[in-house]
Amino acid sequence: MKFIEGGVCAAQGFQAAGIHVGVKTHAAWKKDLALIVSDVDCAAAAVFTKNVVKAAPIHVDMAHLADGKARAIIANSGNANACAPQGEENAEKMCAAAARAIGCRAEDVVVSSTGVIGQTLKVQVIEDGVPELYAALAHSNEASDAAAHAIMTTDLVKKEVAVETTVGGKTVRMGGIAKGSGMIHPNMGTMLCFLTTDCAISPEMIKTALLETVNVSFNRISVDGDTSTNDTCCVLANGLAGNAPITAKGAEYDAFLLALQTLCKTLAQKMASDGEGAKHLITCTVSGAASEQSAETIAKSVISSTLTKAAVFGADANWGRVLCAMGYSGEQFDPDRVDVSFASAAGSIQVCARGRGLSFDEDLAKKILTEHDVEILIAMGEGGGRCTCWGCDITYDYIKINGDYRT
Amino acid sequence: MKFIEGGVCAAQGFQAAGIHVGVKTHAAWKKDLALIVSDVDCAAAAVFTKNVVKAAPIHVDMAHLADGKARAIIANSGNANACAPQGEENAEKMCAAAARAIGCRAEDVVVSSTGVIGQTLKVQVIEDGVPELYAALAHSNEASDAAAHAIMTTDLVKKEVAVETTVGGKTVRMGGIAKGSGMIHPNMGTMLCFLTTDCAISPEMIKTALLETVNVSFNRISVDGDTSTNDTCCVLANGLAGNAPITAKGAEYDAFLLALQTLCKTLAQKMASDGEGAKHLITCTVSGAASEQSAETIAKSVISSTLTKAAVFGADANWGRVLCAMGYSGEQFDPDRVDVSFASAAGSIQVCARGRGLSFDEDLAKKILTEHDVEILIAMGEGGGRCTCWGCDITYDYIKINGDYRT
Repeated sequence: MKFIEGGVCAAQGFQAAGIHVGVKTHAAWKKDLALIVSDVDCAAAAVFTKNVVKAAPIHVDMAHLADGKARAIIANSGNANACAPQGEENAEKMCAAAARAIGCRAEDVVVSSTGVIGQTLKVQVIEDGVPELYAALAHSNEASDAAAHAIMTTDLVKKEVAVETTVGGKTVRMGGIAKGSGMIHPNMGTMLCFLTTDCAISPEMIKTALLETVNVSFNRISVDGDTSTNDTCCVLANGLAGNAPITAKGAEYDAFLLALQTLCKTLAQKMASDGEGAKHLITCTVSGAASEQSAETIAKSVISSTLTKAAVFGADANWGRVLCAMGYSGEQFDPDRVDVSFASAAGSIQVCARGRGLSFDEDLAKKILTEHDVEILIAMGEGGGRCTCWGCDITYDYIKINGDYRT
Repeated sequence: MKFIEGGVCAAQGFQAAGIHVGVKTHAAWKKDLALIVSDVDCAAAAVFTKNVVKAAPIHVDMAHLADGKARAIIANSGNANACAPQGEENAEKMCAAAARAIGCRAEDVVVSSTGVIGQTLKVQVIEDGVPELYAALAHSNEASDAAAHAIMTTDLVKKEVAVETTVGGKTVRMGGIAKGSGMIHPNMGTMLCFLTTDCAISPEMIKTALLETVNVSFNRISVDGDTSTNDTCCVLANGLAGNAPITAKGAEYDAFLLALQTLCKTLAQKMASDGEGAKHLITCTVSGAASEQSAETIAKSVISSTLTKAAVFGADANWGRVLCAMGYSGEQFDPDRVDVSFASAAGSIQVCARGRGLSFDEDLAKKILTEHDVEILIAMGEGGGRCTCWGCDITYDYIKINGDYRT
């Protein structure tokens, strides 16, 4: 398996486009409508937010994906179409407009929205823009790039990745684009992620693979603890790679799963790293926990702790906040067995041994925590459970961005 | 019942003091050691942090309070004595030093610490300072004020309150001091709260009353979601009011409970209002929930939402974040029945009806949210459950304070 170019256009038979139609009114140069289309029908699966308050497109997608098939994805940024008047009606109109252009059933179109909550979607500008969007479709790096930009909101960095692997002797390509910056929290924070592959795989197995992937990638990041109303991760597989279709677990499924997990872990790290206003990617690895589940709960608690995030922002090796966050995670453990170290490209330093503070070189600690990518390593001495989660620091810019998001 | 002056010295037979001894090294004018002493033995009870990682003084206090009796409280700021070498030994030394000065058993002294985690407590400067601290004891408003200042860390505002009520025909006084600014979250965030009363009440009933009080006051505030290692709320009752001792529930207990709850709700609001860097007190009232428990969970989720806090900081009526936070609270409800309004001294405005956004006067909304005290009112249409919780906004100063707390 290797990383390649092309994003959602890396796999055979996928075209993409992204243009500005006017959902984002304040910046006419900002793309706000994306389309991804497969040349042929795809096995399709999606995972959605667990928030009780679900945006309208999610209700529509649940119905459209009930048969495990899809042809295309249409997505807008600038308005979340959540808690908004005529929500489902407008989401269906987006699918219908895309279907008319493509020449497929509206039920085979997946729809997503991201942006402000509670305002009526200007669906007319989207419907009017679809012909231009369809005309812009291409199978190219630039087309995936345009689609990736069209789903961005406060994201500063485009999230796009693709890999190539071998499944059943055939070359399989797989790529994805994602958006996600604020409202990112385990169990699907506001993120949209669209994945395409030319692997032949059944709807059942692609659903299984997606669940096995989301749980170890997107569900292990946190930016601010807020789980949004719109989160969606959707994968389309059109089978054009020509491999014997994957219909059960086995070596082929494992190769596919590894590629999918690599893709999604990479996108997840990009999201955490681009958390609103973030200056640091924080990677927390807990080892020696009672179980993997326990390690995950503790690692999530640490990366979600506002005080730990503020300490990393200040490059302050205040490890007491790490222990504190472990302690309120809900997991039981013996604090007197816990070791904590900080690490980065600048080196590594142990700051706590068996629950007690060590004297350490504050200058080195500061240097380590000043790097962009910072690791918090926790050894618990309880058992063999291990997990890595990703988060980011909290900064003045986070508050600036979110203090006046709607205007 | 009426509010009176005097804090922990409001009740008969209590003296207090607060001085600088040198635990806080960076500011010699900042008080860092407090003492509260009753003239006679007290019925005593305390509630502690639920964090698995507990500071050393808490382990000591659990032992000292096992008999339901105490004479005094000694507390320092500047060092939390948590995850620190010789933690329990140093906490015991603080009790012993206080006991020597007072002439009581060390087991009748309660000890608390607040400040940075993981550094060895400079217990010698505390022991050396106790004679001066004891000499400063007085039964006066100024003495309570000094003790209240000596337990402050990043607090900007002293938290002190007292009330007078009648129990069994006798005038009973009750007062408290508290500290708490960051790390404040339901189930005891870093807060210390010391309460004194001259009411006669048994150890069993004072424990019951304290639990019934903490659950509806301190456990209903949140500043940043971090629950600290040191939280302590302790009450001493010396019986000098001369009422027939309360030994069971009934009219006298109810009068006592009402006074205690009023005291603690007032202190809790002061804490939320003085959340690190906060510019707003946010009061969220959920009504029409399926149960009081459900209302509490939802209100806590709203006041804990970083995005809602950032919106209030920006005076941005982004009510979608309120619905979003309700939705990930873990409670089940029908979003299509939810009404949301914002209110303050500047007026009130409904922004969401039955789960859908209303057109509203943005200028008025901004004016409402610019006030210091802001209310979020949520009507759910599910049942009769109701609860009010208190929080604060998140600001640049919160990050500044916490980005470099240790130096």
